[in-house]
Formats: sequence, C-alpha cells, structure tokens
Amino acid sequence: MTARIKGVLTPVVTPFHQDGSVNTRQFIAQCQWLQNNHIGLAVFGTNSEANSLSPEERIDMLDALVDAGLDTARMMPGTGACDLPTAVKLTRKAVAHGCGGVLALPPFYYKGVSDEGIFRFFAELIEQVGDAALRVYLYHIPPVAQVGFSVALVERLLKAYPNNIAGMKDSTGDIAHTQTMMQHFAAEGFDVFAGTETILLDTLRGGGAGCISATANVNAPAIYELCQSWQQDGAAAKQQALNDLRAIFQKYPMIPALKAAVAHWSGEASWRQVRAPLVSLDDAQAQSLVQELQAVGFAMEGLTRA
Amino acid sequence: MTARIKGVLTPVVTPFHQDGSVNTRQFIAQCQWLQNNHIGLAVFGTNSEANSLSPEERIDMLDALVDAGLDTARMMPGTGACDLPTAVKLTRKAVAHGCGGVLALPPFYYKGVSDEGIFRFFAELIEQVGDAALRVYLYHIPPVAQVGFSVALVERLLKAYPNNIAGMKDSTGDIAHTQTMMQHFAAEGFDVFAGTETILLDTLRGGGAGCISATANVNAPAIYELCQSWQQDGAAAKQQALNDLRAIFQKYPMIPALKAAVAHWSGEASWRQVRAPLVSLDDAQAQSLVQELQAVGFAMEGLTRA
Repeated sequence: MTARIKGVLTPVVTPFHQDGSVNTRQFIAQCQWLQNNHIGLAVFGTNSEANSLSPEERIDMLDALVDAGLDTARMMPGTGACDLPTAVKLTRKAVAHGCGGVLALPPFYYKGVSDEGIFRFFAELIEQVGDAALRVYLYHIPPVAQVGFSVALVERLLKAYPNNIAGMKDSTGDIAHTQTMMQHFAAEGFDVFAGTETILLDTLRGGGAGCISATANVNAPAIYELCQSWQQDGAAAKQQALNDLRAIFQKYPMIPALKAAVAHWSGEASWRQVRAPLVSLDDAQAQSLVQELQAVGFAMEGLTRA
Repeated sequence: MTARIKGVLTPVVTPFHQDGSVNTRQFIAQCQWLQNNHIGLAVFGTNSEANSLSPEERIDMLDALVDAGLDTARMMPGTGACDLPTAVKLTRKAVAHGCGGVLALPPFYYKGVSDEGIFRFFAELIEQVGDAALRVYLYHIPPVAQVGFSVALVERLLKAYPNNIAGMKDSTGDIAHTQTMMQHFAAEGFDVFAGTETILLDTLRGGGAGCISATANVNAPAIYELCQSWQQDGAAAKQQALNDLRAIFQKYPMIPALKAAVAHWSGEASWRQVRAPLVSLDDAQAQSLVQELQAVGFAMEGLTRA
C-alpha cells in the first residue's frame, strides 16, 4: 500500500477548447507543471469546475492523466456526486487507477439532510466500491455544498470504516473549525487538510496534513516551500507572503482569476475560458490582475506552452 | 406541434428495489395511475429524488415509460444538471421522445452565480439541443437549489428564445412571487405553474397554467377536480380541503411520507424505500401517517398491486 498523501495539493483548473470541450493537452501540461513543483493533484475539485463536467468527461480526463504517466499515488480526484451510482462509478475508477485517495463531496442537492442520511450515503459508497485500497477524504465545503460533515458524523464514519475514511478537506476557511477536526481525529490517523494555504502554518502546527488550495494552481513553489520549512525560522513571514499573494486573487472571482493567470504565463489565451454558470474575467480585469501580480514580482516559472 | 401542457402535474415518486436499484414495474404502475387521474408526469423532479438518480437511470426510466405507452405529450421530465453536457443529453432524449416540455433546474453547485452565467447555461443548452419542439420550463426552487431565476433573467431568456422558453415551475411556495411572474410574463404565453396545490386557486385566478405538486402523487383526483372547477361555486372550499390534506403530509418529511402512502395503498411495502441521503419513515411514523389520512377519509382509489 502506498504512503498517505501529505503536503500541498491543488484542485487543478480545467482548460476548455473554444467549443467548450475539455482541452486534454493543456490539462496534462498543467498537471505536469504542478507535479514538477511537488503539488498533489486534487483534480475535479470545486475550483476545477468538476460539477460542470459530466461523469464521462471526468473519467476520460483521469484516464488521460494516467496515460500521460502522471503519478496517481499523489492524486486525489473529486469523485463526489449527488447520486450514489455516479459517485460509485467515479470512485471505482480512481481506485482502479491506484489514486492515493478520493475527495468526496456529500450529496449536495437536498438541504437540511440528516447525519443518518449522509452516513448511509457514504456507507453504501464504501461498501459498493468494496476495496481496501480506497481512501476517502471528506470534502467539507459548507459555503458551496451547504451540506457538510459534523463532528458526530465523522466519528461515526471513522468508527464504521477506519480503513477507508482517511481524512478531510476543510474548506470552511475557519482555522477554529480545522483545529476542532484535528483535535478530535488527528490522533486516529485522520488527515486534515486546510482548504486554503492562508491557514497552512496553523494547520501544520496543529497536526494537520497540509492544504488543498486553489491558489496552489499558480503559487505552487512558494506554498510547497512553506510546507517543507514550517518548523524553521521565517515560517510566519512566508505565511504572510502567501496570504498577500492570495489577497490579490481574491479581489476577483477565484476560478476565472486563476485561469487568467495560467493563460498569461502559459501564453495560451484559451485558458481564460470557463463553463457556464461561471463567467470569465473580461480583458480589462485579466490585464489588471496580471499587472498586480507582476508588480509584486510574481510569475509562474517554467510554465511554457504545452 | 402538440398543445401546451396545462393543469396538474406531479413529480412522480421513484420506487426502488431492496438492493437500491429502480423498480421500473412499480414506476410504470404509478405513472399509469396518475395518467388515469389526469395528472401530467413531471418525472425526475425534486420529489422524484431525481438528483439521486444517475443520468443513465433517468434515460432508462424515460425509455421504459415510452415503451409502456404512457403519453409523452403530458410529460415534463426534469432534465436539469449542474453540468451542461448531461443537461443537453437528458434534454435531447426528452425532445426525441416527444415530451411536451422539460423542467430544467439551473446549475446548482456554485452559489451566488450571476444572471449572466445562468443565461449562458440556458443559451448553450437550448442551442446545443437545437430543436424547435423544445419547451423549457424553468425550475425555480430556491429553498433547495439556492440558485434561481430573477425577473430580469426570465425576461432576457424569453426575449432570446421566445419559442423555447415555455414557462416556470415556481416552488417558492409564495403566491406573491408566483403572481409577480404571472404579471410580468403570462401575457407573452409564459406558463406559470405553482409548485404546490395550496396556491392552485390563486394561481389559476392570476392567469397561471396550473400546479406541479408533490402531493398530486397521492391526492390526484381532488387536485385535478379543483383545477377543472375553479371558476365554479365551492372552489374555495375545495382549496381548503386540499390544504388540509397536504398539512397532514407536511407533518412528516415529504418524500418518505408520499412513499409510505403509496406503499400502503398499493400494498407494496418496498415503496417505502428512499435513496440516501434521504431516510424512510420508520414503521411508527408510517403507521401514524396512514391513520391520520384514514381518519379524514383519504384513500388512493384504484391503486392496486401492479
């Protein structure tokens, strides 16, 4: 069995052709750049527009990464879905490819559902996949999914499936919540990842496993560097630098902004494209973002035309 | 071209086998009972647990209804999805089968999306399906989907696609909102359906097309009867009787309660089953519901073992 995934991962942004179809070549190139920068591939996350992709597209994209020789041991594809058959199909595929884990949204259509109902969803998912190699990371993102994982639910899932429930991505953005999860479960080997690098240092100090962050799509080396050196002098200054850079992106809608940055530094303008219901940055916004990033000396080094 | 769908429709509840798979035989039987009672088939709605079904299951179920000879002209399947390719696939299938309309959720994963983004989603959906026979009913259900349709967005969609944008199911449950939509758009042939029969009379009086209601799964004849006789004496009393019956169901979680009633009157206990994240009524709750319904003389007449 491979080692547990640790460190920095990113929900890899998804490139589209002009006709709206997935640009597989660009996707592989971005994943390769991230892997070269020691960033794990949490493909099909929220910032990947995963729920704007069909299940078939997600399967084809994962196959393409495997065919391109990317390392599945550090891959944590999003395999959640509102419906159990689709979640099972996507999860089976990830396990068959040897992915180090899967990041699983709860079913997010119905609101106000019970812990009992979410427990049953995950119990059926784990039992239908039925593979000891399956490692499920619970994707807690209440601002978007609305439905989430309570402490009591995590406890029940861990008790029922200690081998399969591996950890959580906590996208509350609230260090107090991340600390609560770590205090309750880190000692049992439940790996908590912060959903943003802005609390990476505190997460690592609290016994967490790392972060899975949108901005690691672009600021990969610096985030990795803090994750490597967090116990050394200067960590707080590095954390502050990460926060300052993220603050520039946060002036814009995050996904379009990430794509505008990749478009600029890859030299491939089509990267700007998003799928509805999202809307790309307009030219003025994209230019303004790049100028702000350049003003602080930011660049995506080594990101060349695929 | 077939006549516009009017009157009473229901999001048909979806029966499952013990192993969780769809019970197609029971599904056809329920649709047949509803059609016999003049209820249009809004299969794959919220109360159908549609988002707990895979796209493939929805396609197979629709094929099965067509094979069983049910009338597609009064069918309005839910074909919405968070991702455009799936929404296009499901919608194409419905149009190919001659369905009188489709009920389309907006993409509901991302929250706080712009009207521009939702407009683009529907524009691409309509253009990719590319069929003059397509009639889209906008499914406005903010309590669940969170994402919805503003007056400005409906206006823009109607202007861009006057032939394809046919109406709305308004599941706010707020007659004031339903009236706003009717006042703005009913004169242009935009058919507004209330999402509950509790405001059916006011909706019809305001120029609406009818209702698409969960409880029409069970209280079919009485709801149809009000829809037929709303301009006659006694309509207000009939409306009150509908509300009183619905109030009994609303003491319980709606979908499990509807299924418990169908289970009782069909004599097929497996109807009780729901898919996670929903949870069935327990035996005591199911018994209590049936007793309350019997106490007011309610029964599902003519619903026999399929």
